[in-house]
Amino acid sequence: MDKLHTLYYFLDLAGTFVFAVSGATAAKQRGLDLFGICAIAFTVACGGGIVRDLCIGAIPPAGLTNWYYLVAAIIAAGITIGLYPFVQRLNQPVIFFDALGLSLFAITGAQKSLAYGHNAEVAVLLGITTAVGGGVLRDILLNRIPVILEKEIYASAALIGALIVVLGNHLKWISSDWVTIIALIVCFGLRLLALRYHWNLPVYSNDKTE
Amino acid sequence: MDKLHTLYYFLDLAGTFVFAVSGATAAKQRGLDLFGICAIAFTVACGGGIVRDLCIGAIPPAGLTNWYYLVAAIIAAGITIGLYPFVQRLNQPVIFFDALGLSLFAITGAQKSLAYGHNAEVAVLLGITTAVGGGVLRDILLNRIPVILEKEIYASAALIGALIVVLGNHLKWISSDWVTIIALIVCFGLRLLALRYHWNLPVYSNDKTE
Amino acid sequence: MDKLHTLYYFLDLAGTFVFAVSGATAAKQRGLDLFGICAIAFTVACGGGIVRDLCIGAIPPAGLTNWYYLVAAIIAAGITIGLYPFVQRLNQPVIFFDALGLSLFAITGAQKSLAYGHNAEVAVLLGITTAVGGGVLRDILLNRIPVILEKEIYASAALIGALIVVLGNHLKWISSDWVTIIALIVCFGLRLLALRYHWNLPVYSNDKTE
Repeated sequence: MDKLHTLYYFLDLAGTFVFAVSGATAAKQRGLDLFGICAIAFTVACGGGIVRDLCIGAIPPAGLTNWYYLVAAIIAAGITIGLYPFVQRLNQPVIFFDALGLSLFAITGAQKSLAYGHNAEVAVLLGITTAVGGGVLRDILLNRIPVILEKEIYASAALIGALIVVLGNHLKWISSDWVTIIALIVCFGLRLLALRYHWNLPVYSNDKTE
Repeated sequence: MDKLHTLYYFLDLAGTFVFAVSGATAAKQRGLDLFGICAIAFTVACGGGIVRDLCIGAIPPAGLTNWYYLVAAIIAAGITIGLYPFVQRLNQPVIFFDALGLSLFAITGAQKSLAYGHNAEVAVLLGITTAVGGGVLRDILLNRIPVILEKEIYASAALIGALIVVLGNHLKWISSDWVTIIALIVCFGLRLLALRYHWNLPVYSNDKTE
Repeated sequence: MDKLHTLYYFLDLAGTFVFAVSGATAAKQRGLDLFGICAIAFTVACGGGIVRDLCIGAIPPAGLTNWYYLVAAIIAAGITIGLYPFVQRLNQPVIFFDALGLSLFAITGAQKSLAYGHNAEVAVLLGITTAVGGGVLRDILLNRIPVILEKEIYASAALIGALIVVLGNHLKWISSDWVTIIALIVCFGLRLLALRYHWNLPVYSNDKTE
């Protein structure tokens, strides 16, 4: 299982990096300055995890203490600024790694909450928060309605992933490594299928009065 | 006093439910999807309490651990979606229970802060936060200026309620059950009177330059 | 060094006060009511410090327990409302004390994080957060993109100040009082020079598509 943990570590960094690229891209399009772009990149990459750590009592939050998250965010911001035309053409890989990041963050978020002794509901809610919190903070800072509340199976995929972790941990039918793998595959697959076939959750806006 | 506690419990759930309905209604009007509506409903119902719990060190926040808050929010979202024309006609009862929720959250917020050993200022500030924090987060997520900062005696009623709890607790002239009842009545009455007679706090906008 | 601490204390209050004035001014211009103006004034003055205290585990946050911060914010709001034409003409002193507040908050933020036993990265990130967090929260509440992400050397000056504190604390070449003084002078001078000569960080918005 050693290879699994190396893979795991690589995926965590890849997810952080891609989340940061998505933040830096949005910040650049809004005309923010160099500091603003780095700040938004870091916020998207680490914001969800920081909120999770505050809620489970993991002080100080991992996003603030582990330098490689910050470095990954700054490198992502630098690449986005320096190689913007190239980054724009990377749409496919970015979507792919974003889905990976989403899955990974949802599952590690739920696992960390359980590891800190909290109950199933906390784990599911904070799994979702870890996965989508950064993106929500990005949209709040960029002054728009969080995109994940409006369209596509995104947070819902994170919900399913976190649920599988909690159920697997409760039922103990299989080893926790297998639970992790299954949760990752289901969450990631669901997100990719939703993108491929344009699956959306229902919207009920017969009266957009405001 | 057993009946009082049953009543208390019922009012807490009723407040949660009505706050969630107000969140779900606003989210639906903005065209959010099913997940977005549930997320905003839960945020309005539990957001203020979660911020309070983070500030007083009640980890994990009660809003994340007690499943009935989440269930109340999801039921409220379901009813808002399914029975929208009906919910719209419920304006009067919603305003009534919203005022109740405001009063109850302000008072329980202040009480919980005192129970965790914090001082009077913390209790008053977090009483207000518990009462209005969810609504502020809703307006931030829906990308508008928090309505409670703009009009009507709303947060101010919460301030009065929390102040009564802190004073009552400090002076100890009467039992804490009576303090709770008086604070509830004053806060609730003030809010209803403000609605009835359109009381507002002063605004000073001779130059809306921005 | 007793005089230094009296000066320090005076500057802390002056910074709090000026931050509150900037919040109250912005809130008044947006047409918020009396409570809204006080709430925004308090948020700008204490918001950054409260987020820092949540992240380092200083529960309850100092901004909530020390009554003089609240009083300074309310007095600042009262003066802004009552003497608005006067406050508007105070532009120069406000910018001067805002730069002082920025420097002071960045440095005390970094020092408090180190004093709680956290590492260099946490201290730098939370030094910046203390200095600019209140302004970011103000802009989020007033529904606009945080101005510090868009222009001028502002957060970057806080970053330099916090970095000097962390380096000084690590290298121990000089006493911590001297580190504080040097960090203050550099951060404050950098901010004033940036204002005087219109220094900005680069912006890369060849495509403001959104």
